[in-house]
Amino acid sequence: MGRVFVVGVGMTKVGRFFDKSARELFAEALFNAVNDAGGLKPQALVVGNMTSSVLMEQDSLAALLADYSGLRGIPAFKVEAACGSGGAALYAGFSLVKSGLVDVVAVGGVEKLTENVTAMTTKALAQAADAEYELFYGASFAGLNAMIARLYMDTYGYTREDLAYWPLRMHEYASYNPYAQLPRKTTLETILNSSVIADPLHLYDCAPIGDGAAVAILVRGEEKAREINRALGREVLVEIAGIGYATDSVDLGSRRDLLKMESSIIASRKAYKMAGIAEKSIDYVEVHDAFHITGYLALEAMGFAGEGEAPKLWKEGRFAKGDRPEVNFSGGLKARGHPVGATGIYQLAEAVMQIRGDFPGYKASSPEVAATHNVGGVATFSIVSVLRRAT
Amino acid sequence: MGRVFVVGVGMTKVGRFFDKSARELFAEALFNAVNDAGGLKPQALVVGNMTSSVLMEQDSLAALLADYSGLRGIPAFKVEAACGSGGAALYAGFSLVKSGLVDVVAVGGVEKLTENVTAMTTKALAQAADAEYELFYGASFAGLNAMIARLYMDTYGYTREDLAYWPLRMHEYASYNPYAQLPRKTTLETILNSSVIADPLHLYDCAPIGDGAAVAILVRGEEKAREINRALGREVLVEIAGIGYATDSVDLGSRRDLLKMESSIIASRKAYKMAGIAEKSIDYVEVHDAFHITGYLALEAMGFAGEGEAPKLWKEGRFAKGDRPEVNFSGGLKARGHPVGATGIYQLAEAVMQIRGDFPGYKASSPEVAATHNVGGVATFSIVSVLRRAT
Repeated sequence: MGRVFVVGVGMTKVGRFFDKSARELFAEALFNAVNDAGGLKPQALVVGNMTSSVLMEQDSLAALLADYSGLRGIPAFKVEAACGSGGAALYAGFSLVKSGLVDVVAVGGVEKLTENVTAMTTKALAQAADAEYELFYGASFAGLNAMIARLYMDTYGYTREDLAYWPLRMHEYASYNPYAQLPRKTTLETILNSSVIADPLHLYDCAPIGDGAAVAILVRGEEKAREINRALGREVLVEIAGIGYATDSVDLGSRRDLLKMESSIIASRKAYKMAGIAEKSIDYVEVHDAFHITGYLALEAMGFAGEGEAPKLWKEGRFAKGDRPEVNFSGGLKARGHPVGATGIYQLAEAVMQIRGDFPGYKASSPEVAATHNVGGVATFSIVSVLRRAT
Repeated sequence: MGRVFVVGVGMTKVGRFFDKSARELFAEALFNAVNDAGGLKPQALVVGNMTSSVLMEQDSLAALLADYSGLRGIPAFKVEAACGSGGAALYAGFSLVKSGLVDVVAVGGVEKLTENVTAMTTKALAQAADAEYELFYGASFAGLNAMIARLYMDTYGYTREDLAYWPLRMHEYASYNPYAQLPRKTTLETILNSSVIADPLHLYDCAPIGDGAAVAILVRGEEKAREINRALGREVLVEIAGIGYATDSVDLGSRRDLLKMESSIIASRKAYKMAGIAEKSIDYVEVHDAFHITGYLALEAMGFAGEGEAPKLWKEGRFAKGDRPEVNFSGGLKARGHPVGATGIYQLAEAVMQIRGDFPGYKASSPEVAATHNVGGVATFSIVSVLRRAT
């Protein structure tokens, strides 16, 4: 069965676009991706999105985006897995080309979080929780993550300052990323003194609310991928060597251990196994840091740090340039931004560009193998991909 | 690459279940399907659903349903393509097993339309239209279909009575179906005198609002499917021999011809081609009759009637028992019911049972080849499957 390659990626800047609708953002990202793939036309479209039903009053989203992007008629559907919708779209799109149902697929994500008032956005995001067991009782998404951050700090003896080095570094990386929503450096003092969102999470510990769209073009078969590269004069091929997907209960009350991302542990091991690698072979990773605590737990779940050790290692300078793996040079969800259903595809696009050596921001050290880690809900969904350079 | 077989199907009765939540309905359908497949455990779940975000305030739906059904941990995502969400889930699930990502997949659909007040349900369903070009101006889903019915009647010279033979027959078929929402015969007089919904559509011309869930279990490889059959003492194998998917613009103002379901024409021809058949080989069909006009247009789009001819043929008694194809012996969306995102899987389950000869309602004449036709929006999405008996 043919191997699957990413032959084009495209993104919009993440931000608050009061003058651009979701269809306009998506068409821009799709155009960028198709252009990056030498004009190759997608035969199907899979779109990750979480909030269009509530914030835009729009279903039938995938057909609408296909039509507006000039692709009327092709098979198109939306995939929802909360904040992991982009990763889920990648998984579904990967199988569409791998199975032979189509030869070229566009996998994308789009989110328009500023379409409505902020209170409505908070409510829409809280729908990632269990409506009957959690949301009904007033749980917000930040609130649920705050409880986990508090438990983690209490269990392993960390202070707020210990954890604040995550956003500090993300802001620095984002300052080089032209697609980032918050492209500016910050200080520990600013982070620690920012306003409380849900104690112990303060404003700078959380990813911002933002709009954005990202698209990747996948094809089956090395020959086809090489042919596209030849026409573009591009040398590096990027293969999706492994992909893993796992879920957990939605309500946190049913979890076995709140300080382990079980779905990420399972998904990453599946992806490593499919790619035939161990975690130590991974040179570069984009992890899902909706909150700093999410980023730390992700590093532990993926096997890059022992339980309770990620913040300590991070503070010591690990996972920075020259280390293995290098982590989140995009600025992460924290500072690149987190347009929910698009995030998993932003990560894919960034990792692909880092492997190709043409990421227009803070550059990784020529990674051969990269991974992306996208999460939905409080690690209710985890999707991990392993990308490999094939020159 | 391995062929894909349906080895188990399960449904709930369609109805207004004030005492059952979506997760309970879905678990019931999944249990029935797994039981029908001899206890085979799904390795992944794809769920079609349209309205959970708006009517249930619930995202993360697929993980929630997997967990509640005893399948915590497996890859699971929701697929949205308006009323075609079930068909889209089938398409995505088909590719998951075909690609080898998993060996056994559950494709399902669930909708809980009575979770909220009726006005909210009408609004949620109207979100299948273009939010900016149509919904904003007050379009309802019945209203858009009413315009098409009016244009069809004017163009081909039909009266309301000419079209009323569709619901008449659907109610008769449904009277034999234990899963049907409206299992009772009716009369032409009752249909014609029922209250106006959106002129020229009256109550009996429209599918009802209902809750329901359906699930099918798919596997790759004839050997595996035969092994399951042997253990069950079941003789008939049902293969998904073809599947086609196409889309159109969401807003009707951009359509080329409102009286042709272009997406259904494309999707059905793709499915026929993949199965290596012509439409005349099809013995049995379940078509998407959200309104009687939708059913007639579907028969024309699939090649079973010329343009403008379906109501005439239907009134003459065509498409009934003994004809080819036999159509909608379940009672169709009209009378079996239309739990939106589940409908495409109900159709699949019914067609599979008709091929196996164990459908517990009005029986088809031993079909060898059957098809299902699921639509989202006003034929914005069309998904057609071709099923073949393989003893």
